[in-house]
Amino acid sequence: MAPLPPRSGDAVFANVEHVNAELFSLTYGAIVRQLLTDLEEVDEVNKQLDQMGYNIGIRLIDEFLAKSNVSRCADFRETADVIAKVGFKMFLGVTASVANWDTEGTSCSLILEDNPLVDFVELPDTCQGLYYCNILSGVIRGALEMVSMKTEVTWVRDMLHGDDVYELRVKLLKQVPEEYPYKDDD
Amino acid sequence: MAPLPPRSGDAVFANVEHVNAELFSLTYGAIVRQLLTDLEEVDEVNKQLDQMGYNIGIRLIDEFLAKSNVSRCADFRETADVIAKVGFKMFLGVTASVANWDTEGTSCSLILEDNPLVDFVELPDTCQGLYYCNILSGVIRGALEMVSMKTEVTWVRDMLHGDDVYELRVKLLKQVPEEYPYKDDD
Repeated sequence: MAPLPPRSGDAVFANVEHVNAELFSLTYGAIVRQLLTDLEEVDEVNKQLDQMGYNIGIRLIDEFLAKSNVSRCADFRETADVIAKVGFKMFLGVTASVANWDTEGTSCSLILEDNPLVDFVELPDTCQGLYYCNILSGVIRGALEMVSMKTEVTWVRDMLHGDDVYELRVKLLKQVPEEYPYKDDD
Repeated sequence: MAPLPPRSGDAVFANVEHVNAELFSLTYGAIVRQLLTDLEEVDEVNKQLDQMGYNIGIRLIDEFLAKSNVSRCADFRETADVIAKVGFKMFLGVTASVANWDTEGTSCSLILEDNPLVDFVELPDTCQGLYYCNILSGVIRGALEMVSMKTEVTWVRDMLHGDDVYELRVKLLKQVPEEYPYKDDD
């Protein structure tokens, strides 16, 4: 088997270990199915997926800071760009685009056209209220909280609900001064 | 960021998409925790993880056959080698070694020294009976069943229980003639 050349435009991260995306999407599907069986209510499943994501995000931020070579972001706009271009790429192997900024620069959308979590997924009629990828919103919320940004992250569009892309709305609620190892210049 | 050169001896698979191993291990940890909360009994968690793995394995075999470029294995010995060197590499990014064959050539061990599922995991005293990685045994059993090999897959050694490696015992119970697209020459 020949080595896989990096695709044009791909950021490839040294020292980042990988697993197969299909194994991940099937494993994630097993979680969602388990929660649907256990919790029965779709709203409860959404909450639990978000909470799992939050718990993952508060740990994953360390991997990101250690291996992304990203230095401190000047503002929330730059933070959103880094999540879209570096974070998504490092963790899911895809990039998002940033769009729909509000005038204050505190709310924007992350738009995903390709989402490895949903390979093979089709929602049955009984799950129309399910935000299948809700773990992602939790991960972003958790990771940002660890770098002192309180956010609200919600789904605006979802291809599993018939939309043309996935759109996550990220709203900065509060930015608190950072502690060591960050120097706060504000 | 510089492209990551393939490490010496690594098989790298074209067209196989990847996600971050730490995201995977944290996500898998969230499943195990959820099951421990829901099912309470460690034995039940072991069974459920194995069943989840089985359901994943019967689907993952397609990805493997489509992308591994592996042709039909002559016997169970070759099958075991392919799982260890190609399968583990393709899905988890690590390789296993094959050891401890019985004289009939129907039982062997897959030995893993590096296991991305268990990053950051430490079992509390209440979980000493837990086979944390039991999803793996289910995946192997499910995948082999789809290529007509009924197997029994059990843990013999587990680093989370203080052993020096992970050792999975794979026992071939029955091999049934394969159907199309395989030509059965036996």
